[in-house]
Amino acid sequence: MTHSNTPSTLVMIFGATGDLAKRKLFPSLYHLYQKGRISKEFAVIGVARRDWSDEKFKEHVKSSVLNAIGTSENIDEFVSHFYYQSHDVSDSDSYQALKNLATELDERYQTNGNRIFYLAMAPEFFGTITDHLKADGLTDTSGYKRLVIEKPFGHNLESAEELNNRIRESFTEDQIYRIDHYLGKEMVQNIEVIRFANAFFEPLWNNRYISNIQVTSSEELGVEERGRYYEKSGALRDMVQNHMLQMVALLAMEPPIKLTTEEIRSEKVKVFRALRPLKDDEVDQYFVRGQYDKGVSKGQKVRGYREEENVDPSSNTETYVAGKLMIDNFRWAGVPFYIRTGKRMETKSTKIVIQFKDIPMNLYYGMDKPLAPNLLVIHIQPEEGITLHLNAKKSGQIIETTPVKLNFANTSIDAMNTPEAYEKLLHDCMRGDATNFTHWDEVKLSWAYVDEISKVWEATRDVNFPNYEAGSVGPKAADELLAKDHFHWWPILDLDVDQC
Amino acid sequence: MTHSNTPSTLVMIFGATGDLAKRKLFPSLYHLYQKGRISKEFAVIGVARRDWSDEKFKEHVKSSVLNAIGTSENIDEFVSHFYYQSHDVSDSDSYQALKNLATELDERYQTNGNRIFYLAMAPEFFGTITDHLKADGLTDTSGYKRLVIEKPFGHNLESAEELNNRIRESFTEDQIYRIDHYLGKEMVQNIEVIRFANAFFEPLWNNRYISNIQVTSSEELGVEERGRYYEKSGALRDMVQNHMLQMVALLAMEPPIKLTTEEIRSEKVKVFRALRPLKDDEVDQYFVRGQYDKGVSKGQKVRGYREEENVDPSSNTETYVAGKLMIDNFRWAGVPFYIRTGKRMETKSTKIVIQFKDIPMNLYYGMDKPLAPNLLVIHIQPEEGITLHLNAKKSGQIIETTPVKLNFANTSIDAMNTPEAYEKLLHDCMRGDATNFTHWDEVKLSWAYVDEISKVWEATRDVNFPNYEAGSVGPKAADELLAKDHFHWWPILDLDVDQC
Repeated sequence: MTHSNTPSTLVMIFGATGDLAKRKLFPSLYHLYQKGRISKEFAVIGVARRDWSDEKFKEHVKSSVLNAIGTSENIDEFVSHFYYQSHDVSDSDSYQALKNLATELDERYQTNGNRIFYLAMAPEFFGTITDHLKADGLTDTSGYKRLVIEKPFGHNLESAEELNNRIRESFTEDQIYRIDHYLGKEMVQNIEVIRFANAFFEPLWNNRYISNIQVTSSEELGVEERGRYYEKSGALRDMVQNHMLQMVALLAMEPPIKLTTEEIRSEKVKVFRALRPLKDDEVDQYFVRGQYDKGVSKGQKVRGYREEENVDPSSNTETYVAGKLMIDNFRWAGVPFYIRTGKRMETKSTKIVIQFKDIPMNLYYGMDKPLAPNLLVIHIQPEEGITLHLNAKKSGQIIETTPVKLNFANTSIDAMNTPEAYEKLLHDCMRGDATNFTHWDEVKLSWAYVDEISKVWEATRDVNFPNYEAGSVGPKAADELLAKDHFHWWPILDLDVDQC
Repeated sequence: MTHSNTPSTLVMIFGATGDLAKRKLFPSLYHLYQKGRISKEFAVIGVARRDWSDEKFKEHVKSSVLNAIGTSENIDEFVSHFYYQSHDVSDSDSYQALKNLATELDERYQTNGNRIFYLAMAPEFFGTITDHLKADGLTDTSGYKRLVIEKPFGHNLESAEELNNRIRESFTEDQIYRIDHYLGKEMVQNIEVIRFANAFFEPLWNNRYISNIQVTSSEELGVEERGRYYEKSGALRDMVQNHMLQMVALLAMEPPIKLTTEEIRSEKVKVFRALRPLKDDEVDQYFVRGQYDKGVSKGQKVRGYREEENVDPSSNTETYVAGKLMIDNFRWAGVPFYIRTGKRMETKSTKIVIQFKDIPMNLYYGMDKPLAPNLLVIHIQPEEGITLHLNAKKSGQIIETTPVKLNFANTSIDAMNTPEAYEKLLHDCMRGDATNFTHWDEVKLSWAYVDEISKVWEATRDVNFPNYEAGSVGPKAADELLAKDHFHWWPILDLDVDQC
């Protein structure tokens, strides 16, 4: 792939006064600017309803950057590229004004007519905005035009299709960049490299040598102030449909022919197509849902989900999902992929555990302890690294085995230089690399898979919620899910990279 | 295997006033005693020419222990088990006196007639001593009788056979414990566990996945005060015939049916039988010899081998050997095992590098650097540990690979508890476990292999010695040996376990 690494562009951020822009987008743009990853030929238009001046917006960007990074070198130079346009999403005059400003800045900053429309706002406006962008001529530009869309992309397959059809009236598929910020994480991107740049793993990466794979993404926080959104979403839509299934796809996909966007996406899509679909009466055998009760988190008493703000006191929204996915293809037949994600868990952690099958014959059988299985652990966050769990000889006279960990901690070497997910994804979009964004085909297949589960869950009135304490490892049923297969979840806290 | 872990025994050390007894045997016995690994039913008779009293010997043992360990807890209690017998190896009266003392101590210490005869002395007396032990009735005991023999076991196949035949007149093969102290090293013993207690390695442990294996044992020291012995031996006999070939056997052997002495030895013997024998005119293609010149070691100017004490100024004795061994069996056909060992090298280190084949298709081709091959490094000494060299994603925007090391350092956990090789081997002998001693079949086959090389070398008069500088990595020809196969030695200093 040949992309300019310092592309010139005009970025229009819709929802520029919002939380995502403040916490992620401005700091990421600043990082890219400081690293020379965007040329001087760039401008940003903040677009939002509020009646702000350019100056007020620049001050807002400044304080966002300072807040997030704690430094302000070249900040004035940086914010000199920022403009503000007060905006009504459903008013053509607004778009006309925006277009005039864009045309002016295209010229002033020599951006070659390249435009990125970043929709960092509530999804109900996505369609309206893209309609107007086309109708009011903003997409009518001599450079590239790209649409960046934040999740959620629909609420189920039907609404996602509706949204997609509407957006596609204004943008082609290859102009659409659907954000899944997990795909911007350093160690998620590392999955591909670990698998395909080493002679060591690929020969073992199949059902002859792997017994099961466990993907955990747990949060310590509860729903916080997002009750209103979360009530309509739940963990299945908020985490499983996108992030969890994306990680599964990266772990399970066949080696692509080339490392191009198309080839990688096509392999991921094949994984989704091989996912064993669930019948109504199978959902309960494969998936477990949970909702947190009050409990203790970080030493503080915290309330249950049903007591949270903007949450129905008899809510059946799940804050936890565990599932068993079967990928019915030649490589993975018989190997369960277990996933789990939840709020108010004992620790904040995203980790992948690849558990290898036991050796065919245990020469060390009958010794004190059974032989520990080999594990490859990929630490996604907050730790970044790789750990291999092996058996070695226990020091001493007798030949006894003891589990040892071979560690590589990314943090110890260059965590400081690791760009944040949004920084990478923004730059990818500017360079026109869509590899780490989700294609419609992936969105469609993952909604289809997840819809079956929500359909069954929504039809059940008798939900035994809450069913796990805040600060715990989730509902008991999640343990039973693995116990049926004679496996168990590897305790996250035991898997951490040994620090020395 | 069921052995008593605190066996009662009478140990007779021939050569008790010598260097090995002082540096290794007394401290090891003390360690075993302190750990409760030998019962109170033990006694040691120091046997040597000098006219010492029991008291003088006890003082000698005390100071040996203090010197080696720096502690003296219970030392008086410990040395109360020690006795001295002045001795003439060729005089039956001497043996009679020894027998009387032994009989007395058998009774006093309730050793059940168990006797270990440890020959820690010059090999020319081995035969004489074993003849007398039998003739003079010392082996005529109600308990077990075991003979421990230090290297060298012969000087070539013929002399080894002669020695073996003579010893076998007094002891059966299973009563003979031939010491190869490398087999007592913690990480050498770990080779077996790493290979057979992990699902991870064995599937890759063959010529489909391994490209070559490199075993290096280098010393910083020169020949020191051992010139007289070394002139007759050289690195080939001193290191290759025993230690290096033993490590190769442990790396290459098939998984044994059981972890018994017999099964393991039988698999090792199969490796030696599969070693590709060299014809006269092939020796130079497979083996390289070297002799150190003056140079700089640890910042000090040091002299060349020919200038050392008791060394012939025109000596052709090799102080360095590098070789390529081919194991012509189904598992290893086509995979070279490279070995090298030398004195006055840049560093003191014993390491094994298993280099894996390149991945079948490099998706990351054309990027800045070629992909580094995967390596498994087993650190034998002075560091103890395992390192896996992998490729991971380089932190940052672009997908680039970077080599990373997954480390496990034994030292950081329980180096303090790791028994020294001699301690383990002594205890093995007391328990009757001969696994980590060399069977005659192994000695015979390794001499046969090595003899072919020395025969050709001895016949060459025009040796271009010295051919490497003290403090270097050895002669150039050793690099060319691998370059012919398009490999290179992995630089030892780069392989060290990352300390943090």
